[in-house]
Amino acid sequence: MQRKKAVVDAKIESASIAKGLLLIHTGNGKGKSTAAFGLLARALGHGMKAAVVQFIKGRSDTGEEAFFRGNANLTWHVMGDGFTWETQDAARDLASARKAWELVCGYLQDKTINVVILDEFTYTLKYGWLTIEEVCAALQARPSMQHVVITGRGAPEGLIEIADTVSEINLVKHAFKDGVQAMPGIEW
Amino acid sequence: MQRKKAVVDAKIESASIAKGLLLIHTGNGKGKSTAAFGLLARALGHGMKAAVVQFIKGRSDTGEEAFFRGNANLTWHVMGDGFTWETQDAARDLASARKAWELVCGYLQDKTINVVILDEFTYTLKYGWLTIEEVCAALQARPSMQHVVITGRGAPEGLIEIADTVSEINLVKHAFKDGVQAMPGIEW
Repeated sequence: MQRKKAVVDAKIESASIAKGLLLIHTGNGKGKSTAAFGLLARALGHGMKAAVVQFIKGRSDTGEEAFFRGNANLTWHVMGDGFTWETQDAARDLASARKAWELVCGYLQDKTINVVILDEFTYTLKYGWLTIEEVCAALQARPSMQHVVITGRGAPEGLIEIADTVSEINLVKHAFKDGVQAMPGIEW
Repeated sequence: MQRKKAVVDAKIESASIAKGLLLIHTGNGKGKSTAAFGLLARALGHGMKAAVVQFIKGRSDTGEEAFFRGNANLTWHVMGDGFTWETQDAARDLASARKAWELVCGYLQDKTINVVILDEFTYTLKYGWLTIEEVCAALQARPSMQHVVITGRGAPEGLIEIADTVSEINLVKHAFKDGVQAMPGIEW
């Protein structure tokens, strides 16, 4: 174990490439989005500029939005207003997802934006609103120093292949199974 | 899948217990601490009071510390100055760890603190500086509405047993393996 750690430490020390990273937080556990928001805090702490695009139909009364909104180096979009996973209007869902994607593409072409967070983005692929080909093409054509964080369950293999760092967050246990309600500050 | 989701949604809707939660972020992947910092943002966004105690000997030039420090509802301690994992002075390590733990115990008895984050805490157990019994006793005696987040690899079974929500973050891939250096905004 000690030897393995030494090998890893040596690798880290000799690492010299500086580049924009594509990070993916996937899996069924709690922490995918919260880890993205932690990274956002970290990036803003370094004076970086960031954009957050949230894809799930979402509340705008979350603690994270209240906390981050108003930061001069950050833009924050809740794009889910127009579509959910269970609406009866598939055409509207598709149109809303594509509109959100156009917004994302603008950020992926803007080298003044250092970090782009695509929260709950994987569902747009799962539901077929976007193709893996167009998404990978846009990600790979982005400014070379721009970091992108994608969160959501079931990240497809094609996305994992082009990513630099991928974490799979698994659920060992969750409080809601014991009847605990979604607590402010924890779940939203 | 749809049926499973409906069952889960029903469980979430009927969940009615409000309580302080013990969350654990463990595993070998990237995102354990960043998820804790995301949760911190979320909690501060709700006007909660929080304390962060970092146990690993650490730099104080991180993006997260720069970003969060100065928030009136937050205290932030980097306790690793006095001990590392590879020092030659085991007695000093133990004394430093115990001093950090005393500080933590103060927060765990203070009901005005809504969220306590113990970053990289599991190592204090791994190295035997604290016992699982004393840690579990202090956690279980804390104010009933206080949330605690513990991060670090190899969370022991005794800690997982008393936790409410546990996420295991596994490494699928990591950029440093491709020679990418620790990028500001991403790794620190």
